[in-house]
Amino acid sequence: MVKRIDSVKNPQVKMWKKLHTKKERDKTGLFLVEGYHLVEEALRTKQMVKELIVSEDADIPSSWNVDNVSIIVVSSEIMKAISDTETPQGIAAVCYQQQAEELPTNVNKVLLIDAVQDPGNLGTMLRTADAAGVELVVVGTGSVDLYNSKVIRATQGAIFHLPIMKGELKNFIPVLKEQGLPIYGTSLENGRPYMEIQPAGSFALLVGNEGNGVQEQLLAQTNENLYIPIYGKSESLNVAVATGILLYYLRGM
Amino acid sequence: MVKRIDSVKNPQVKMWKKLHTKKERDKTGLFLVEGYHLVEEALRTKQMVKELIVSEDADIPSSWNVDNVSIIVVSSEIMKAISDTETPQGIAAVCYQQQAEELPTNVNKVLLIDAVQDPGNLGTMLRTADAAGVELVVVGTGSVDLYNSKVIRATQGAIFHLPIMKGELKNFIPVLKEQGLPIYGTSLENGRPYMEIQPAGSFALLVGNEGNGVQEQLLAQTNENLYIPIYGKSESLNVAVATGILLYYLRGM
Repeated sequence: MVKRIDSVKNPQVKMWKKLHTKKERDKTGLFLVEGYHLVEEALRTKQMVKELIVSEDADIPSSWNVDNVSIIVVSSEIMKAISDTETPQGIAAVCYQQQAEELPTNVNKVLLIDAVQDPGNLGTMLRTADAAGVELVVVGTGSVDLYNSKVIRATQGAIFHLPIMKGELKNFIPVLKEQGLPIYGTSLENGRPYMEIQPAGSFALLVGNEGNGVQEQLLAQTNENLYIPIYGKSESLNVAVATGILLYYLRGM
Repeated sequence: MVKRIDSVKNPQVKMWKKLHTKKERDKTGLFLVEGYHLVEEALRTKQMVKELIVSEDADIPSSWNVDNVSIIVVSSEIMKAISDTETPQGIAAVCYQQQAEELPTNVNKVLLIDAVQDPGNLGTMLRTADAAGVELVVVGTGSVDLYNSKVIRATQGAIFHLPIMKGELKNFIPVLKEQGLPIYGTSLENGRPYMEIQPAGSFALLVGNEGNGVQEQLLAQTNENLYIPIYGKSESLNVAVATGILLYYLRGM
């Protein structure tokens, strides 16, 4: 299952390069990850990796299970051409995007993300959600593309572990409510300080855009809206930091 | 107090450009900030702004107090040359770096930062510390330069509000201990889950490098070392997110 490509003009190489665009990712349902750590995490997830791409001057660690994976060896010139880092590690993988399945019925900890724009923020939020034991993340429309390479890097691999759906949050909220989850929005105005909530271990937390916060329309659908008190002169917290504080508080000790 | 510069070759313009290097910042004790939000925050801080630089096609908001500030109007070409953003807002300021003063004796909430390398992380940590009511931050040697423009942007202005010192953390820890502050390190090994600590409102929290954490030598100087439990498959949290969770917990409700 090993093949070799030497020409940068090979159509497969061209397709890999195009995976840096959202358009191509949407069309193919694929995305590209780079570097040892992320590729290793992808390989640990069943049926995630379509192709493993290895530079001729790089090695596949012997601890990796690549039995059922198709491997393509490429020149370092090709690796450079498909990489978006300045010094590629020599290893990459083409992965399948997660399919949007039915909303699971037995989740207790959910994160809803409304229109977060910065890829580093979105990726860090996914990493944090995974760490905090969140069981489902819904990325609302208007957010940066989940499969943007900067998002994936910032997740540090969480994108492979965490059930993630995309869609209209306004349609998800009533369903989660019906399942008995309290929905907590976040808002600097008309909210309660988060410490007033008794953590009960089950919740859906709704966080929003860096500049504008959560849309009014969505805040109107929640059970309660929370804020994190600011004790200094800063106007607000970074959205990923705020998400971390709230997720760890709401899950309970 | 208004003067005008039109030539990109003017020596003052050259000096401003050089302020993007750590060397020049260290030599002059100055740094450059850009954009309306940051310049406004700088102007609110007494004797912080040395010079206000305004592009000929930009305006100074009438709400700003610029009575005692020297203003330099420049061509948009000059503004572009001194800016490190792609679309400069047309306003910048040369500011004085905070002088390292004596350690204050009456601080209750301190953040100690060991060798954080990423400018976005360091800046976000300062923003978070300010929000959480931290009264002093000590940035240890080995950290990215505090006056790096990416750090300043990520602080969202907190760099102007927050007392910040630079230095060897190993020398600060004993002094803070003597002042009666419990020193909490952070470590994935040999630590206690943070929730076991009863928040008492006064503390010095020691956080560390993105990859390696806090140096062993420093961890040995603390009263206790804490960790944040990971409930999912992520290996760790982003350092700025972890700092936010711990600062808000330790300050108490």
